[in-house]
Amino acid sequence: MTETMFDRVREQAPHIHNITNYVTAHDCANIILACGGLPVMADDPAEVMEITAGCDALVINTGTPSERTIRSMLLAGQKANELGIPVILDPVGVGASKLRTSTVLRLLNEIHFSIIRGNASEIATLNDSNSVSKGVDVSEADKVMEKRIEKALNLAISLSIKTGAVIAVTGETDIVTDSRRAAFIRNGHPMMSRITGTGCMLSGVIGTLSASHLNDLLGAVVTGVSVMGICGELAYEKISVRKEGTGSFLVYLMDAMSNMDGDMLKNRSRVEMMDIDRYMINKS
Amino acid sequence: MTETMFDRVREQAPHIHNITNYVTAHDCANIILACGGLPVMADDPAEVMEITAGCDALVINTGTPSERTIRSMLLAGQKANELGIPVILDPVGVGASKLRTSTVLRLLNEIHFSIIRGNASEIATLNDSNSVSKGVDVSEADKVMEKRIEKALNLAISLSIKTGAVIAVTGETDIVTDSRRAAFIRNGHPMMSRITGTGCMLSGVIGTLSASHLNDLLGAVVTGVSVMGICGELAYEKISVRKEGTGSFLVYLMDAMSNMDGDMLKNRSRVEMMDIDRYMINKS
Amino acid sequence: MTETMFDRVREQAPHIHNITNYVTAHDCANIILACGGLPVMADDPAEVMEITAGCDALVINTGTPSERTIRSMLLAGQKANELGIPVILDPVGVGASKLRTSTVLRLLNEIHFSIIRGNASEIATLNDSNSVSKGVDVSEADKVMEKRIEKALNLAISLSIKTGAVIAVTGETDIVTDSRRAAFIRNGHPMMSRITGTGCMLSGVIGTLSASHLNDLLGAVVTGVSVMGICGELAYEKISVRKEGTGSFLVYLMDAMSNMDGDMLKNRSRVEMMDIDRYMINKS
Repeated sequence: MTETMFDRVREQAPHIHNITNYVTAHDCANIILACGGLPVMADDPAEVMEITAGCDALVINTGTPSERTIRSMLLAGQKANELGIPVILDPVGVGASKLRTSTVLRLLNEIHFSIIRGNASEIATLNDSNSVSKGVDVSEADKVMEKRIEKALNLAISLSIKTGAVIAVTGETDIVTDSRRAAFIRNGHPMMSRITGTGCMLSGVIGTLSASHLNDLLGAVVTGVSVMGICGELAYEKISVRKEGTGSFLVYLMDAMSNMDGDMLKNRSRVEMMDIDRYMINKS
Repeated sequence: MTETMFDRVREQAPHIHNITNYVTAHDCANIILACGGLPVMADDPAEVMEITAGCDALVINTGTPSERTIRSMLLAGQKANELGIPVILDPVGVGASKLRTSTVLRLLNEIHFSIIRGNASEIATLNDSNSVSKGVDVSEADKVMEKRIEKALNLAISLSIKTGAVIAVTGETDIVTDSRRAAFIRNGHPMMSRITGTGCMLSGVIGTLSASHLNDLLGAVVTGVSVMGICGELAYEKISVRKEGTGSFLVYLMDAMSNMDGDMLKNRSRVEMMDIDRYMINKS
Repeated sequence: MTETMFDRVREQAPHIHNITNYVTAHDCANIILACGGLPVMADDPAEVMEITAGCDALVINTGTPSERTIRSMLLAGQKANELGIPVILDPVGVGASKLRTSTVLRLLNEIHFSIIRGNASEIATLNDSNSVSKGVDVSEADKVMEKRIEKALNLAISLSIKTGAVIAVTGETDIVTDSRRAAFIRNGHPMMSRITGTGCMLSGVIGTLSASHLNDLLGAVVTGVSVMGICGELAYEKISVRKEGTGSFLVYLMDAMSNMDGDMLKNRSRVEMMDIDRYMINKS
């Protein structure tokens, strides 16, 4: 499935509007270019609606929020919803301050997100633990599943049901779900957490893939997560042979994305899909 | 001509004030350092006039505009005009939003720019197509000139006449004109458009060269455009041998600029100069 | 002393809150990660106090100040003082504009800094030359000391006495003092001034080391200065063999930091410590 998706992005070259942080904006722009999209960075309330209207997807990242950019996120998100283009949320640091938490909750309230990507603790913060859907208890059914993965899947399914979004929880094993199906992706390398911005970049890649695959957002997210992980693996292989470090790792990760193709993706992708409904039926 | 210009910058180490976007500010600072200038980034209305007053050129880039930075652009530009130091405009994304278009028009109205650099569509937006100088129709005279180049040259000449600025239109063939002479520069590589910031970086390089060559701004711009293109060629040669991608390309482009010298420039520069007045006379 | 300090940071992984400029924020985040810390970038008044409260050190950098971020610096600094976590000041460009000078003076007035790092002219600007402590005149005592180093040491001692901070003056020979002892560090390479951000990155590294060594801030600063210089030496050695330039230099500098260990530090560190009190006594 995923091999051809990646090629299609290169043909379509979708425009991706990013309202993001100033720390990783440069990496986000370059990784979007590397995977075939055209990044547009604009974060002023005076122009974001027009910019969004000229784009094929919108990525909102709360990495360095301010009153001005939060207004822009709300305006651009509402415009994207009006136009029916995918909106991706990367709730960086939600839970770390009242500003971030209240901003993300307001975004979730006023905007329909197609996709939400975060780490386990960010996704947990977005969930009210009391409301975790009790019906979706994967733990009993699959004893081999690790506790942490099981918990993250539960939170992701719950958040997906509440928001209608495809949820991606990234970590050692990445989880993607739209509440009906779930994917476990085992690509990537721990070195990815030793540079800043891999999460932000992944959200940009997911936004780019989703813009070209409106009818298969789950597949777009799974492809994005897997491909980013593969880039991390390739980059790590290169630095470990050459005894290089995190500076080279970032450069090679970008190289890998710009040279990525369907064959590489097919050969290295480690994705396991699961049907949640059937899973639940099997369980009962 | 251009070989010695590049060396002079290294001797003089001019200070270049940049009011630019947060996506490529880092690359702009590093490329200015690589070509021999000293970058200063400052964008607050409370300090930009003083900062400009301590610098040898001012580069204004509308990549991520906001109300605050637009005020800074106006203040710094007026101060630079008062002091007679070169002001370079990079109208990133003009036409993409009312904010950008009105900002750029206001800048053109209130500031005299020495140099304006953009891609063909940005330069076209700056021109009111009705007012294209009819007298400067290069097309009939030179049948071998490609239609697109011809059109871009026309727009550039027209904009130069209106603004008094040296105009650079960058694309596959780059065009530079001060309305009396025109240069066609055939350096560069398509890979340059697969990373963010090559245009912004070029504007920084042009600003740096112009600061050391006040009496030959056309020559400074031609040198900057050619040298940046050569850096792109050298970077591409290196990644294509090594099968690397866009991450390495940016690194090698910076390497090439920091190692650039007059000999390399002389050997690889592909510049064709044309006298527009004589050209017109020959034609009639 | 310094070898084990560097290892301890990796074990503790302290959180470092940075209120910094948008030009080098990316490099600062990555170098903090490379040396073992966890960077947090946040600069809005609405959240900085909470963010600081969750961190182990605060680094304030005045590289691209604005009214909004200056308020954040004041709020975060006061919170850090309340909590007793180290606060590091990097007064970028102080003296270049009234905004920067008045901002830095206000910061010094309202916040107790644990550490101040700047180049010689920034440190000189922070000192009122009239108030340089006359008692601390190293020049007569040590004829072999270069004039410039002697002057910088005097200013550093004076500023340390006034502020209670450990002062680092970086240049060809780096000086660190807490007014009782002084260290001269002769690591580094001139190429470090040909890329943007080495000073900002060093302040981030110092912040990270200080967070794990509250009882030996002088040692933390000396280690940070030496280790950053060693990274510059290693990066230069690599590019000079390969005939590369400033782009690769930055990549290799980051590589060197992420691969740094106590042995490397021990082998290459060139630090000379001096007891200022004894020095003065010997002299009289």
